[in-house]
Parts: sequence; structure tokens; C-alpha cells
Amino acid sequence: MSNRTEIATLGEFGLIRHLTEKIELKNRSSVKGVGDDAAVLDYTDKQVLVTTDLLLEGIHFDLMYVPLKHLGYKSAIVNFSDIYAMNGRPKQITVSLGISKRFCIEDLEEFYAGIQLACDIYGVDLVGGDTSASRTGLAISITCIGEGEKGKVVYRSGAKETDLICVSGDLGAAYMGLQLLEREKSVFKGEKDFTPDFSGKEYLLERQLKPEARKDIVEALEQAGIIPTAMMDVSDGLSSELLHISKASDVGCRIYEERIPIDYQTAMMAEQFNMNLVTAALNGGEDYELLFTVPLTDHDKVQAMKGIKVIGHITKPELGNYLVGRDGGEVELRAQGWNSLA
Amino acid sequence: MSNRTEIATLGEFGLIRHLTEKIELKNRSSVKGVGDDAAVLDYTDKQVLVTTDLLLEGIHFDLMYVPLKHLGYKSAIVNFSDIYAMNGRPKQITVSLGISKRFCIEDLEEFYAGIQLACDIYGVDLVGGDTSASRTGLAISITCIGEGEKGKVVYRSGAKETDLICVSGDLGAAYMGLQLLEREKSVFKGEKDFTPDFSGKEYLLERQLKPEARKDIVEALEQAGIIPTAMMDVSDGLSSELLHISKASDVGCRIYEERIPIDYQTAMMAEQFNMNLVTAALNGGEDYELLFTVPLTDHDKVQAMKGIKVIGHITKPELGNYLVGRDGGEVELRAQGWNSLA
Repeated sequence: MSNRTEIATLGEFGLIRHLTEKIELKNRSSVKGVGDDAAVLDYTDKQVLVTTDLLLEGIHFDLMYVPLKHLGYKSAIVNFSDIYAMNGRPKQITVSLGISKRFCIEDLEEFYAGIQLACDIYGVDLVGGDTSASRTGLAISITCIGEGEKGKVVYRSGAKETDLICVSGDLGAAYMGLQLLEREKSVFKGEKDFTPDFSGKEYLLERQLKPEARKDIVEALEQAGIIPTAMMDVSDGLSSELLHISKASDVGCRIYEERIPIDYQTAMMAEQFNMNLVTAALNGGEDYELLFTVPLTDHDKVQAMKGIKVIGHITKPELGNYLVGRDGGEVELRAQGWNSLA
Repeated sequence: MSNRTEIATLGEFGLIRHLTEKIELKNRSSVKGVGDDAAVLDYTDKQVLVTTDLLLEGIHFDLMYVPLKHLGYKSAIVNFSDIYAMNGRPKQITVSLGISKRFCIEDLEEFYAGIQLACDIYGVDLVGGDTSASRTGLAISITCIGEGEKGKVVYRSGAKETDLICVSGDLGAAYMGLQLLEREKSVFKGEKDFTPDFSGKEYLLERQLKPEARKDIVEALEQAGIIPTAMMDVSDGLSSELLHISKASDVGCRIYEERIPIDYQTAMMAEQFNMNLVTAALNGGEDYELLFTVPLTDHDKVQAMKGIKVIGHITKPELGNYLVGRDGGEVELRAQGWNSLA
């Protein structure tokens, strides 16, 4: 970056003003945005959905290979994804940052540019937030507020026996992208002249560095007249999310290995890294695809939808949670998600 | 503390379940709390107020002298205060924590006990949040959602010429409490046998360690039929907040030194520390009192209210922002708030 303006030149209030002064509110429900003690929203005829995420440097992201603009974009997207996972529409976000001295104003402008890009694409208003110092790494706290139609909000707890289990897109690619970046980072550390070779793996990097939230799927479900019985986004990995739905709905599930959607690049990469492909797809995390269940009577409707795969079905709770392999063998699903506390 | 249970024994999902399983929702607007991708709220006939705060160890708090239960309580209170400052009522909060390995489950139970106590006293529901690892210190991200009556939400921007400037309670005590704790901490570091002596200074410590939000004042204003023209809470210091109101409302202000409410213990402490008392009251911060303006016609009403002091009046913008001293001399107000980035 060519310029470097120290944050002290603006001060805390100057900084947040500088970063937010060009923001224009788009949504009818955004009454008052940045610049008061609280944002003011109007949700007269809707239900209000609220989700929040705290992202910490060294735990949730590594600035060695994540550009700040991408980080801003992804930070917003992961929150939008939670709102879509309730069958809702994200409408507002607030962004709080804890920043250490090594960041300059241009860095934060980059981060905010990513946030703003995500907001523009998904029709979301940035309505609040603040910046403060951090003793150590970058801390990002985002809260997203969305609207849900009364009676159409979808919880984790509504899955019923015989329901079909569906998933959007494909799984495991974001995890493979992370493996790729981690490998290149360790190679990079050992060599002086080094240009990472990512050709043929662009999709994996994109899934890791610039994921999207499945607005299109939520809209397609609405157009098809489908209200899922349960829904979640796949952030910790398919296994972990399925177990959440089973627990919350008091059911069991069977999914089929051969039906799990996996991209060609993901499969190639697993081969190259000598990793188990199904494990990566089940436990990888950060896919931000939608996992949902629909009544058996919606079978033809979901079959007709683009980008949706039926991967199994809901069972009685006493039948447990299993993956049926290509050979017909059954393996119990376990939560091996990204449990950063374990 | 007698017990120490490592967090790894519960895992991330187990931990958040353990900390939140006893939570019962109190408010009609809280449809669904912890345990899904997002909380679901119903604000059909109200406006929704949203405020968020990111608190980082070593910047916003020092665990050397802040007990975790107090920290939880205060973290909630400072967010409630922002909602009251909009003439609103806090109804829900979400709490996200970034925690390092040195914390055990009992520590987090203490923190949550403080959050829960604040929620019980102020009638607020804890509806979401998560925990993740932190490489370094404790990171606390809180979002508070509140309701405002349509047409009665009070912004910073409504102050008009001749309006009276009012403040609740007294100022500077929280800052003096902090000075006291910092001093005792440095004394403590130098000695082996040491019991801090806080007698006669309990009020200062309470204001720093266990502040309250002025729910009572917002309710009293409603009962008195007063809707302030502008309002803020005093978190960064009176000077800083007055300048925010002047800027947002495009006005100036005059406040009078002799009218600034200061507690006896604050005054004693300033004397003892050889600090300028008025500077402490103007720039101290963390008082969480309400600063508001009312039309001149409400003079008798505010005079009759307990715990409210009229400290000055709003002027034309070209007259600037001044403190009128006891000797009649005028000093321009400047923002010397807690600018942790400068």
C-alpha cells in the first residue's frame, strides 16, 4: 500500500466518522445509523433476527494470507449467512474493531471497503459500531440484524421423521483452501524467492477467502413455495451441524456418502494432500452452505431446484446419526468441527 | 475460588450450553433466545434500538482489580445505558467472549453471574452469544437491543437554542475510583503484606466497579411528561458528550462550574491526589449518568425532579462551547475523553 496515515492523526471519533461518513442507508427498516448511542430500526410487521460473531486474530484468521478487504467481506458474510439460515433476510450490521498500533487508516479503509462491498451486494445497511485500541491482535465484533416473516422463521428444532435432508452447493472446498494457504505459508517461511502456485485451485481459495452467503437459495426456496422444517448454515462442518439439528429436533439421521456434493478441485486437492475426502467434506467447516430439512412431500420441488442435493433423511431418534458409506457400511457421525477451545 | 474445571472438559458447544441453560426469557419481545443461528425478536409496535460494545483486557479493564462478576455486570450496564440514552428500554443482549486458557469454567460462571444479575435487575433477556478461544486476553463483545416508542426516541441532534442542559446524579466519581484502584495496584506491587484501605471511599469504588444505568431517570422523565430534545449517556466525560450534542444539533452551549454535581468523596479524593476537581468531573468518563436538554418551558418540571441538576443552556452555534467558572471567566470546552487510540 502506498499511503500510511497513523490513526492518531484522526483520533477515535474522527476515525469512526472517517470510516462511516459516506454510508447511505438503503433499507426502510434503517431509521438511524451510525452516530448516536444506538441505531434505530423499524420492524413493525416483521420479526427481528439478531446474530453476533467475535473474530480474533490468530484464532479465526491469519493476516499473513488474508487481505484486509477480504477479511472485511468475509466477516460480514458469515453473519449474513446466520440470518439466511433462519430463513430471514439480513438488513443491518454493526461493526466494532479493536486495533493495535501496527494498523494505519488505509488498512482500516481496506477492511471497511470489504464490509461495504458485502453490504452493497446483499442489500444490508451498516448502522453502527466503534473502534478502540487493542493490546495485541485485531479483534472484530459484528452483529447482524435481519427480518423474518412471522410464521416463516426456520429453527433447528423442526425436523421430523422421514424429512429429506438437503444441502446447497458443495462441501469441503473452504477447508481445502485453508490447507493450501497454510502449506504455502510454511513453504514461504522457508524460502526467499517464492511465488505460490495456486493455478487450478482458484475455487478452493475463493471459498476460503471470499465465501458467499446463500441468499439465492433462500429466495429460490421462497419461489418454490418451500418452508424448510429445520435449517442451519454449515460453518463448523456438516457432521457438527447435522448433530445440532438432530439434538434440537429430537430425531436421528442417515446421510449417504455418495450423495455428498464435492467439487472436482476439492477432490483433487484431497488426493494430492493424501487426505480423506469424505472427512474433509463432513468436518471441514466454513462452507457457509445451507443445510435444511423438508417434508417428503416436497421431494419433487427440491429435486427441481438448481444447486440443491438431497443427501439423506431424518429418522427416529433411537436410530442415531449415521453416514452410510458407498459399500453400505455405516459410520456414526461425530462432531469434529473446529472446536478451537478443545 | 475453590474449584477449577478446565474448559476443555466441556468443549465449545458444551460450554455455551452450560453457561446459558438456566436462562429463562422474560420479555414478550424475546421469541427465541440462545441456541439457534440467530435470536428471534418481535418488535411489532415499537422501534428497535441496537448498540454494541467491544471490551478488551488491558484496554478497557484490568483483571488485577476487577472481579469477573463485577466485570460481567458492568459490561451489561454500559450497554443498557446506551439504550436509556435514546429514551429507550433495553430488552435483550447477546454476549460473545474470546477467552484464553488461563480461564476456567468457574471464572466464566462468575462473569455470567454478573451479566445475569444485571439482566434480572433491568428486566433484560440474554438471547445469544458464543465463546471462542483468544490468544491473549479476555475479549468481550456485547450487543444490546431495546425498544423505543415511535416519536419518542431521543437523538443527539435535537438540542435547540435556549434549551436547558441537565445532568443526572454526580460526575467524576468513577474516574476517581479508577485513580484509587490504580494507586493501590502500584502500592500493592511494591509490598508483600498489604491490605488496601478504601474506607470512606466506598462510593468511588462502587461507581467504578459496579456502575448503574439510569433506568430510574428515564422512567421519571416519562412520568413527568418530559421528552428531552437531545440525550446521551456520560461515558467519555461531560465535555466530550456536550461537544457531541453541540455538533450533532448545530448549536453551542454554556455550562456553569458551580452547577456541576460532584459528590463529597470525589472532592475529598481530588484534594488528596492534588488533582483539579473540575477537570476530573468534566473529563473523567464512565459516569453513565444521563446528559440531556429540555425546552425552557420544562424548567419547573425538571427542577421538581430528584437527582437532576440544570447545569447550563444551549446557545447559537457561533457562541461556541464554554464552561463559565466561579469567577465568571470562560474556558472553552475540549474533548479530553478517554481516547484510547490517541
